[in-house]
Amino acid sequence: MEVTNKGLLIVFSGPSGTGKGTVLKAYFAKHPEARLSVSATTRQPRPGEQDGREYFFVSKEQFAQMKQENALLESAEYCGNCYGTPRAPIEKWLNEGCDVFLEIEVQGGAQVRRLEPDSVGVFILPPSVKELGERLRGRGTEAEAVVQKRLNAAKEEILQAKHYDYAVINDTIEEAAEEIATIISSEKHKISRNPALIEGVLNND
Amino acid sequence: MEVTNKGLLIVFSGPSGTGKGTVLKAYFAKHPEARLSVSATTRQPRPGEQDGREYFFVSKEQFAQMKQENALLESAEYCGNCYGTPRAPIEKWLNEGCDVFLEIEVQGGAQVRRLEPDSVGVFILPPSVKELGERLRGRGTEAEAVVQKRLNAAKEEILQAKHYDYAVINDTIEEAAEEIATIISSEKHKISRNPALIEGVLNND
Repeated sequence: MEVTNKGLLIVFSGPSGTGKGTVLKAYFAKHPEARLSVSATTRQPRPGEQDGREYFFVSKEQFAQMKQENALLESAEYCGNCYGTPRAPIEKWLNEGCDVFLEIEVQGGAQVRRLEPDSVGVFILPPSVKELGERLRGRGTEAEAVVQKRLNAAKEEILQAKHYDYAVINDTIEEAAEEIATIISSEKHKISRNPALIEGVLNND
Repeated sequence: MEVTNKGLLIVFSGPSGTGKGTVLKAYFAKHPEARLSVSATTRQPRPGEQDGREYFFVSKEQFAQMKQENALLESAEYCGNCYGTPRAPIEKWLNEGCDVFLEIEVQGGAQVRRLEPDSVGVFILPPSVKELGERLRGRGTEAEAVVQKRLNAAKEEILQAKHYDYAVINDTIEEAAEEIATIISSEKHKISRNPALIEGVLNND
């Protein structure tokens, strides 16, 4: 049976190279009701990027104003550019009953977890750092020094997994997507998320 | 991927007539690795009951000794008979990686939840008290006054659901069993249940 009909906010993190985007794509293919939060950024669009799809591309002035109006759930600066999560679409989707994924690095994730204690933190892990290295090298696009640098960054990020609720290991994409579905379904059965349920069962007579 | 290989202790409660036993039977049919805790009792076996299957039938002296030796996880007296949950088989099964269900009334459930904070509390609910009444009447074995008494007891028990982690509504037996499977699978992905996971991912290289 369906329990709560309020959407869940899923804070979804994991080191780069773990296949976060691919797993989410597999999840969304089976769950068209789910939504992916789109960040606002002051950086320039790259070729092929589309405003409102990869990012909302905004000016520094617009970004500052969004921050000032408390329109961002979290924000961070990275390589001289600002990134932030617009609050309004998330709240709208959650109220419509859609689950919303926030794909976010660990510091931003921690900010959101503090502000939104009802959110669910899911951390995606590679089967091992060794395999992550093989995946990065397998792309054949990066020098060994770059791979090593990314692996070290990944190790730092993995240490932050302890601040999340659930771990999903990306062994295979389909399994990982299925495990996310399991976590979301289970979370919706939490009694704390269903304050009206007990009353409904008692009074529906 | 498989995460923790330690079994879960599931404290499973719900008002009488909700179909707890039937749902568990459907669950066990698909999950032969799961175990059902068998209580010890000082009451006399009823026709057809088998020692070690429905209950461990013990004398009052044996029961008192078990209590004294801290061999019971919880115990209660009910209609002049003692009931208790033997600790040893549960610990053995959990260490073997089996999930263990404790079908227990709410007071005993609360005792276990306090002693075993890692346990998972699942409360099974009828779709409504009205439907529970129809089910009880449908059996055709009980007078209306008895049905009313049981419904009042059910309402009292349902108010205790808030002390549990998850609610499962027994709309259909198969769905309810499936939802329990989802909850257990999801719980095993909790990072708090996988203290060695992050280290394993980091060091497996």
